[in-house]
This record gives sequence, C-alpha cells and structure tokens, in this order.
Amino acid sequence: MKRFKIRFLPIDIVYTAEEGENLLDFAMSAGININASCGGFGTCGRCRLKLIEGNIEYRGQRESSGSETDKKEDIILACQSYIKGDAIIEIPIESQIDKEALREKIKTKVLSARYDILSLNTIKPNPIVFKKLINIKLATCEGMDDLSSVIGAIKKEIHKKDIKVRLHALQTLPSTIRDANGVITVTLFDTGHYWELIKIESGDTTKRQYAIALDLGTTTICGRLIDITEKEKDGPRILEELSDYNAQISYGDDVITRIMHTKKKGGLKRLHDAVVKTTNSIMEELIGASGIKKEDIMFIVAAGNTTMTHLFLGVEPTYIMIEPYTPCFLSPPVVRAYDIGINLSRETPIFSFPCVSSYVGGDIVSGIVGSGLNKKDGVNLFIDIGTNGEIVLTGPDWMLCASCSAGPAFEGGGIKCGMRAAKGAIEQIRIDPVTFEPTVLTIGHIKPAGICGSGLIDGIAEMFLSGIILQNGKINRDLGSKRIRQTEGVYEYVICYGKDTLTGKDIVITESDLDNLMRAKAAMFAGCKVLVDVSGIGLDDIDKIIIAGGFGHFIDPFKAQIIGLFPELPVEKFSFIGNASLHGATLCALSKTYAQEAQRVAQMMTNIELSNNKAFMDEFIAAMFLPHTNERLFPNVIKKIKNSIGDKSV
Amino acid sequence: MKRFKIRFLPIDIVYTAEEGENLLDFAMSAGININASCGGFGTCGRCRLKLIEGNIEYRGQRESSGSETDKKEDIILACQSYIKGDAIIEIPIESQIDKEALREKIKTKVLSARYDILSLNTIKPNPIVFKKLINIKLATCEGMDDLSSVIGAIKKEIHKKDIKVRLHALQTLPSTIRDANGVITVTLFDTGHYWELIKIESGDTTKRQYAIALDLGTTTICGRLIDITEKEKDGPRILEELSDYNAQISYGDDVITRIMHTKKKGGLKRLHDAVVKTTNSIMEELIGASGIKKEDIMFIVAAGNTTMTHLFLGVEPTYIMIEPYTPCFLSPPVVRAYDIGINLSRETPIFSFPCVSSYVGGDIVSGIVGSGLNKKDGVNLFIDIGTNGEIVLTGPDWMLCASCSAGPAFEGGGIKCGMRAAKGAIEQIRIDPVTFEPTVLTIGHIKPAGICGSGLIDGIAEMFLSGIILQNGKINRDLGSKRIRQTEGVYEYVICYGKDTLTGKDIVITESDLDNLMRAKAAMFAGCKVLVDVSGIGLDDIDKIIIAGGFGHFIDPFKAQIIGLFPELPVEKFSFIGNASLHGATLCALSKTYAQEAQRVAQMMTNIELSNNKAFMDEFIAAMFLPHTNERLFPNVIKKIKNSIGDKSV
Repeated sequence: MKRFKIRFLPIDIVYTAEEGENLLDFAMSAGININASCGGFGTCGRCRLKLIEGNIEYRGQRESSGSETDKKEDIILACQSYIKGDAIIEIPIESQIDKEALREKIKTKVLSARYDILSLNTIKPNPIVFKKLINIKLATCEGMDDLSSVIGAIKKEIHKKDIKVRLHALQTLPSTIRDANGVITVTLFDTGHYWELIKIESGDTTKRQYAIALDLGTTTICGRLIDITEKEKDGPRILEELSDYNAQISYGDDVITRIMHTKKKGGLKRLHDAVVKTTNSIMEELIGASGIKKEDIMFIVAAGNTTMTHLFLGVEPTYIMIEPYTPCFLSPPVVRAYDIGINLSRETPIFSFPCVSSYVGGDIVSGIVGSGLNKKDGVNLFIDIGTNGEIVLTGPDWMLCASCSAGPAFEGGGIKCGMRAAKGAIEQIRIDPVTFEPTVLTIGHIKPAGICGSGLIDGIAEMFLSGIILQNGKINRDLGSKRIRQTEGVYEYVICYGKDTLTGKDIVITESDLDNLMRAKAAMFAGCKVLVDVSGIGLDDIDKIIIAGGFGHFIDPFKAQIIGLFPELPVEKFSFIGNASLHGATLCALSKTYAQEAQRVAQMMTNIELSNNKAFMDEFIAAMFLPHTNERLFPNVIKKIKNSIGDKSV
Repeated sequence: MKRFKIRFLPIDIVYTAEEGENLLDFAMSAGININASCGGFGTCGRCRLKLIEGNIEYRGQRESSGSETDKKEDIILACQSYIKGDAIIEIPIESQIDKEALREKIKTKVLSARYDILSLNTIKPNPIVFKKLINIKLATCEGMDDLSSVIGAIKKEIHKKDIKVRLHALQTLPSTIRDANGVITVTLFDTGHYWELIKIESGDTTKRQYAIALDLGTTTICGRLIDITEKEKDGPRILEELSDYNAQISYGDDVITRIMHTKKKGGLKRLHDAVVKTTNSIMEELIGASGIKKEDIMFIVAAGNTTMTHLFLGVEPTYIMIEPYTPCFLSPPVVRAYDIGINLSRETPIFSFPCVSSYVGGDIVSGIVGSGLNKKDGVNLFIDIGTNGEIVLTGPDWMLCASCSAGPAFEGGGIKCGMRAAKGAIEQIRIDPVTFEPTVLTIGHIKPAGICGSGLIDGIAEMFLSGIILQNGKINRDLGSKRIRQTEGVYEYVICYGKDTLTGKDIVITESDLDNLMRAKAAMFAGCKVLVDVSGIGLDDIDKIIIAGGFGHFIDPFKAQIIGLFPELPVEKFSFIGNASLHGATLCALSKTYAQEAQRVAQMMTNIELSNNKAFMDEFIAAMFLPHTNERLFPNVIKKIKNSIGDKSV
C-alpha cells in the first residue's frame, strides 16, 4: 500500500493518506467540517475543496455536477475524489473551524498505526494440525500391515508419539500409498494426549496447508483463509477475508433474544443451522475467491462469545440468561466438521476458544491474544465494543474482565433512526456550532438511510460540543434552530431532511435516543471504572487502551471521550486494532503456542460480574451525565466544552 | 436345564439327555443306526423304537402315522419323540451294529462337556465403557459452568483422570442435569489416554448397562445382547443371542470373491452396507426380543476375520489377496456408531478385535480369549472351522497360528448336493456296513434337500468305514450296491432317492465331492502338522484340542479322525466349545481385562504363512489319503478300518 502526503491549506497541516482513499472520508476523519448532506453520493455538490496541486482521481458524478467555473478553478467534490499521489488542498474558509479536533485526530491516527500488532510474517508456523512429508516403503513380506508401515515411518521420521488413526484416513489408505511412489503426506493433529492421523495423501502436498479463522459475532461473522505453510520469503498469510451478517439475525438482535428463541420448539436447531449456514457460505466464498481446494483446509479456529459458541456447537444456552448465569461449558470440546454440519472434509477439527464466563466469551480471550496484551508490560485496558461491550484490564500477572450490558444502541438498536453499519448509514456527523447545520457522511457514499452506532457517538458529541445537548443529556430547547423541534412530545434534532434521504423521511436524533446512548456509554464507563477500582489502581495508571471490535475502528476516541464513553486519557494511549478476535484466531491457527496461550489467558481472567454489583450500579448512575457527574474525571473535556459552549450555556 | 437318564436296551447303556431333546437326534448322536429316510419329518415311519417305560412326549405327525399295532406295542417314532423324563427304550435288532462307535461317542460327549469355559457369572464386570452414578450440585454462584460441575463431581467421586466430553453429551447437558434432582448417571469410556464422557442421564440408570457382542463371520453373523451390570446374585448375562446370514453372501461365498467385488465400482460400499445392514437387523431383533431400550446399549465388541473387519469398517481390503498379503491394518481404530452407519446412539463406541495377519483375524484372537487357552498350561491346539480353517498352537509362552485354505467344502461349497447348515441339510448319516443302506438326519427334521459340511464328514467317514470308499478317496466299484453308480462318467453313492427328498432329485456324494473334501481335510491336517513341527513338539504332546466355530460342534471327532481331518489323539483330549469368537467378544465386553488380554494375544501370535510354504505342501500331499499316507499317524483308525472292512478289502 502506497502512502502519500496531503497538505491542507490554509491550516497548513500535512498528513499521510493511503493510496485510493476517498478524500471526503479522509477529510472528515481528520475533523474537517465539510457540508455533505447527500451522504457522499455526489448529488448535493456541497463538499467542495480546491485542488492546488497533486494527483487526485475523480470518479462517478463529478463531471456532471461540477460547474464550468469549478473546473476552471480546480474546485473538486471531495466525495468523488480519490487520492492517487501527494497533493495540496485548500479548505474553504467555512470549514476551518476545528483545528484542535483536527490535531487530536491526526495524532490518534498516527499513534494507533504505531501500535505493534504482531505481524503474521514474523511467526514461524507451528499449527496444531499439520502436514508432514513421509517416505514410505510398502510391505515386502508377510505379516506387515499398511497402517503400521505408515505409523512406523511417522515415528521414525518425526516423533515417537502415540498415533491413532481416524477411520476416514484408513478407509482408502491402501490405494493411496500405492499410488504414491514412496512419498506420502500425512495430516496429523496433536491432541495433547496423542497424535491423530487425519489424512493421508499421495505425493507431496505440504505446500497446500490452509486454515480458516472465524470470528462468530452476534451480528456479523468474519472469516479468514490463512496460509499456514512455512515460507522461505514473506508471502501473504491471509489469502482472503470476508464477513457477512449472521443469519441468526432473523431470530433476534442480541444474545438474550436468541437464547429465548432456543426454548421454542426446534429453536436451538434453527439457530444452530443459521450460524452454520452463514459460516458455510463465507467459507465457500473464501475458498472460491482464493482458488484453493476445499480439502486442503485442515482445521477451523472459531472465536465467539459464550452464547455464540454454544449455538455454533448446537449446545443448549438456556441458563446463560438465568441467574447465576451458568453456561453449559466454558472449555468447548474439539469437534469435527461433520459433527455440526460444517461443509468441509468430515474429520476436519474445529477448535473453539475457551470462554471465561457467560458474558465474557472466547472472542474476548481471542481478542486479548490477538492484541498481544497477554505479553505486554504495564496495566492496559482492552475494550471490545460489539453488540455487547466487554472490557479487560490486564496487569503484570492478572487480568480482570467484565461484560457491560451496553444494550444495542452502539449497533443502532433502540434508536429511532438507528441502523446497522451498512450502506447508507450515517457514520460521521459534523455540526457547525454557529449555524447548527450538520454535515454527514454515509457508508458507501449513498444517500443517508439512518444512523449507525459510530455516527451516533459522533453526532451526539458534536451536538454536545455545539450546545444542542446539555450535560444532563437533554436537548437545549432555547437555541432557536429550526432543526430542533418536538415530535409527539419528544424533542429531537433533525440531521437530514427527507428530501436528502434515501427513505424520504427525516433523519433525527431524539431525546429517547440520547437516553439509550447515555445508558450504553454509562455502562461501558462504569465497567471500566469498577475494574480499575477492583484492581486498586487509578484510571491514570492505565498505560494503553486498546479498542477492538469491527465497530471500534470507526469510533473517534476524542468524540468518545467527549460523551464520556472512554476514560479521559491522553489520546496517544488509545489504539484501534480492529477485529482483534479474528486476529487472535489467526494467530492460534498459525501456531499452537498461541492456542496454549489462549488457554492460559482464559484461566487467568477473573470475571467481575456487574449485573448485580453495587459498585457498578453507583458508577453507572454517576456516569449518566455528559461527560460524567464527576468533572474531575474529564478535566480536558470540560475545558473543551467550556471553550466551545461557554458563552451560550449560561 | 433338567437332565434325565435314558437306558437303551438291549445294549444296556445309560446316558444322560437334556430335557426336551429329540429322541432321534439323541439316538443318532449316540451312533445308533436308525432308518429315517425322510430326514426326521415323521412321514417315512421308519425310525421306530420301543418305549419300555418312561416319560416321552409325542409331537407332530406321530398319532397319524403310527399304526394301531404300534400303539399297542408302545412303538414310537423317534423323530417325533421328545425326552421329558427318565426312560428305557429298546432299540430294534437291526440298529445294534456299532457299539464301539456308540461308546466312543458317549465318552466324547461327556468329556467335552467337562471342558471348563469361563462361566460369565464368575466375572466381575469392568467394562471399558461404564456408567457411574454421580451426585451433582448445580452452580449457585457466577463463574461456574455445568460441564465443570459434572467433571468435578466425576473426578471427586471416581477418579482424577483427564476427562473429555463428546459433543453429543454436551448438547443437552444443561436441561438433563436440571431434571435430575441432584443425581445423574454418566457414561464414561476409558480411552487409555483419558476418560471420555459419552452420555449424561437424569437419575440412576446404572441398572441398565448393556453391550452387544458380535461375531462377524463370512457366512453368518452372530450377535449377543449382554447385561454388563454388576449383579448381587447370579443373573443372566446373555439376554438374547441371534444369528443370521451375512447379507454379503450375495456378493460371493468366500473372502477372496468379496475382496474382488470391492474392486468394482461401488463394490466396497455395497459390501460395507450389506454387513452393516445384517448387523443392524440382528441388533434390532436382539433389542426387540429383550425389551430393553436401544439407547442403553453402551458399546459393541466385534470379532471378525481380517477381511470382514475391513469390510465392517468400510476399509479397502484389496491387498489382503495379493502377495505378500498386506492388510490395511491389523489394529483397527475404535469407531463410533455413526461412522459406519450402525443404528445406535451416534457416539456409541465400536471396538473391533486386533488381527494377526491377513488370514488370521480378530475372530481367532477372540476365539483364543474365549477358549481361555491364553491362560492354559501345556500345549494346546485350537481349531476353528468356518468358511476358512484357522489353527493356533499355544505353548507356555508362545502361540503359533496359521490359516489353511480349506476351501468351501465344509460349508457345502463345491459339493454336488452341498448346502449350508440350513433346514433340510443332512447333518448325520449312518450306513449299514452290510446292506450299504443309509440313514439320514436333517436339520429341522424335514425332508432332505442336500448335505451340509458335517453331514459330508459323517457320510464320508461312514462310506469309508463301510468300504464304499477306498483309502485313495475313490469309490469302490466292486461292491455291487445299487446305490453306487456312474453318472456322466463320475462315480457316486446315492444317499437319498428323489422320492424321499425335498427337491425330488437324488442326493448323492460323488468322487468330485470326495476330491474336494480330501483337499480340505488334507489342508487342515497339514496345517496342524506344520505348526506342531515348527514348534518342535510331537502331535502326541498336545494336551487338548479345542474345536471352535459354529460348525465345529456338529462334527463327530471320531469320524473326523477316521477321514484324517483331525490328528488321532485320545478322544478325551477333544473339546467342542462352539462359537468361541462370540464368547471371547462377550468376555471383552464384560471386562477390559479380557480386552487387554486380546491385545496381548494378538501380539504374541506368530503367523506361519502356509500359502507358499514347502513343508506345508509336502504335508498336504501326504494327507491326500484316507486317513493319511503315513499310517503310523493314525494307528487306531487303521485298526478300526481293518476290523470293519478287513474282510472285504482284499
């Protein structure tokens, strides 16, 4: 990936963009306020920037909507522009409002890129299921059997472990080894107690060793196809990566609704079938896209929350939702593809991550391994924001974890115009603190259809900064903006009028939405606070905050601090690592060292149950304020707010 | 079983019969020559005996066929009479011919009954898959999972072994233990490396523990349903026993034909499906007859020859028939019911016996364990006569074994009027040495349809004793009996004329039949001789000869010595133990001590390959004579023959 320097005038700040990045995305993520009411679709023509010099590629609508004057003056629509080289761009005067935010943003962006996630190419593969090339001699006298010849050769050439053969490998062994001309490839699975001989192939197939890593999310399932061979040069490890909505969505948004569905007749089977169906279709696509053969996939490593792991294995999750929240298992057994209907060779082992409790699952264990926090010095905070919010505080020889029932607000649930992070979802909002006019950017740059979680955080932080929302989470009735209005007795702020939206209806943020988001952010913050208090340290002692989750990397940490979702800490302490769970599963697929590490992490974690925890309830209530009732926890945010709205809020 | 004394007059010999025994069977097995050309069907009315006193029950045709005179004189038809108490019976004068044979016969019968097969009731059950009652406490606080509660309880109450759970047991664990009121029954499988938790049931089900023992014969499959619970009193261990023809019969009589069939498209699957189908139907019947529940069957122990074990597991057997006769495996893996289509709970383990070589299989290993020879002092010879003939010579710390390609003659194959040991098969023949008139007894006492293997041995021995056959195995052309004739250039002896047979065709023994039987008996004897020679002992040093095989117990050892099938040894050294393989499987199901013993036996056995063995070929040719070219090996038989036919054979 090439990187280019983009210099913004007149503020004169330079920073680095990746080749092909959209200019509107880039500018907005840098905190530059650009009007774009069509969400990036190219129709409103308001996201105008001036190209002083450089290599920018225009796509889509630009030719038709840009006026002749614009062309002459090198005015470009940011939403239709893609970075192809270094460039100097002038920002219109009305967009120069938030230098400070811009600087914070850049710092974060640069720093988070520096957080060193383990590079996959530095890892020497040592997978739990592996292929070995074996020289085999056919029996030349009576009294020998083929299996003993194969096992003898393995013991002689590799290791004197006990070896047990799986029936499927045995069934065609005789013809396979006779087709082989003296060289066979055996697939072995180190069960810990003995080696299992899963497969025998003629000739050398050791160059074809692949695994699938899965992140089984409540909402989304992500899959990776990984090359687990030893490579002389650095070759690509991740051949393909894909994600799709979990087909279980039809049976409820959150794990509790899903668990309730399993109590209906055939419900457990329906949910099991749904997640397996999604997994199979993702694998089918991964395999199809890569051109490898399905039979060369040797195993699966799956990370899911506790409920998802139960449903993936077809295990009753009922008591996860009933006090004292008892899952059926924490350490899942290794199963085979055919045990659960996974569409691979029947004996293919499927490993699931161990869970810590009913609400801190294998995805978090995997996330910790993926983040490398299990090997990091100091005290670090890991936050995974998905459908649920899980947090882990890691110390030198301890780990505390908790799950905060953040509710579905971060995924757009319970929000009037909420939607998932899909095409047309508003994911960034800027509000002019003078005119209260918003600028929005949607996923996919199409007309807005609703607001996703990160858009909501962004929007509410902007509303708070611009004085539209008060510290108690209520809308300021006294601003006199047309966009603030009352509908059926509830105050709301209009982000997009129906004429600009995909649905034709107004997109708004209501006081009820605010209330839901307040609960969600308060739960997350209270959870962090309780863990920190239990550990006996202070918030300031945290060395790093690692934000994981497919959702996490859309969140602006500065905005998240403004609403009090994350503790106020220097922005350079924050790192965004994306889907750490999928990364952890990838590491465990590559080497059993990581798989063993995952077991250790799961055992090491102490779960702090928050659901009936007095300290948590107190912290939760204290956090039901913007940014928090205790202003001393957010001195910089308070200062910023005072600067921003100080004059108006009297 | 009650026993009664039957006194035969005028020879005045008393011996013991079992209640309900058929009088014709009983008399013929005692060597009493009774005319019965209808095979025991009750129509010919020739098997007349006089009941002097005693309790005999008449069934079937007797009332209609017996004449008024007969009734008055208490003449009964033996084939319609069943022993119900002590009795005195007068044998018609024409039946008093063979006192010596009678005495030999009685001796054998009494002695063989004395051979002490391990009584199942003396065994303390210690099966490899077992149930245990566990007290279980549900989690009362957070952080516990159900599986850990169960495993913790098992480790606390039974043993601190590693325990792994099977997915199927896990899937419904939560509701099962909550239905249980604190008491659950766990089914555990001791894999050697760890304990596997296969099943969890509510309440106490430890009284319901059953296993299936299988003898997978090439021709016949036998199954037993065994109660493996610990019993305070001696209860029945074998609840049901059933056998059926192996459905593979449609694809060939012997293992070689079956192996050739596997090379056809879909052939292996067809053969695998056939044996599984027969097994499933036998199990279905066993379960149905006993009234137990299918899910209480905890495992299967299967003993089969090497080819049958391959086909049962769906493994390519191809190279078993190609020099150097290499089977795919000797130690079969433990598989699960669903791996091979066995119609029991999916995780049910299926254990197959280890094999020794391509032609000495798990059935022989099982037979040795079943016979107890592995624990016996001295030198003993084990002979299993089925579709193939396998022999094992056991010493104090060694075992030699071999397989003799006896050919299918003993199962009625390659014999003009040969048939399997089914209803209507002639299984006993007596020939009057004066008139050359035969008496026959069929299985099921119906009209004769053909001759089975034991009938053939019986008939040929009788033909030899009566001078119809010469020592070179040819029919004596000079006797002048109508029953000796030439058909299409081949000499033959007519046993039954068409008017008395089921098919309406004559039943004969031809010189080709004699040739086939000569080869079969010569192979068996030569095999024994080679093993004895290899071991460095003499035939006389053999302490016991154990004849096993479903077929074995129909053979008259005295007759078998006359034709030279068995070595000439005092009749009290012979024991008939029936299906030793099934008995061995039963022992292994009851206790893993025997299963471990089977492993030891398989490893201890040295296979002597006979197929290209010079010594065997020499012994084989020497044995192609009645009883043998070396008369010193059969001094008593020679004496007997000289007595019997001395006058005529000059």
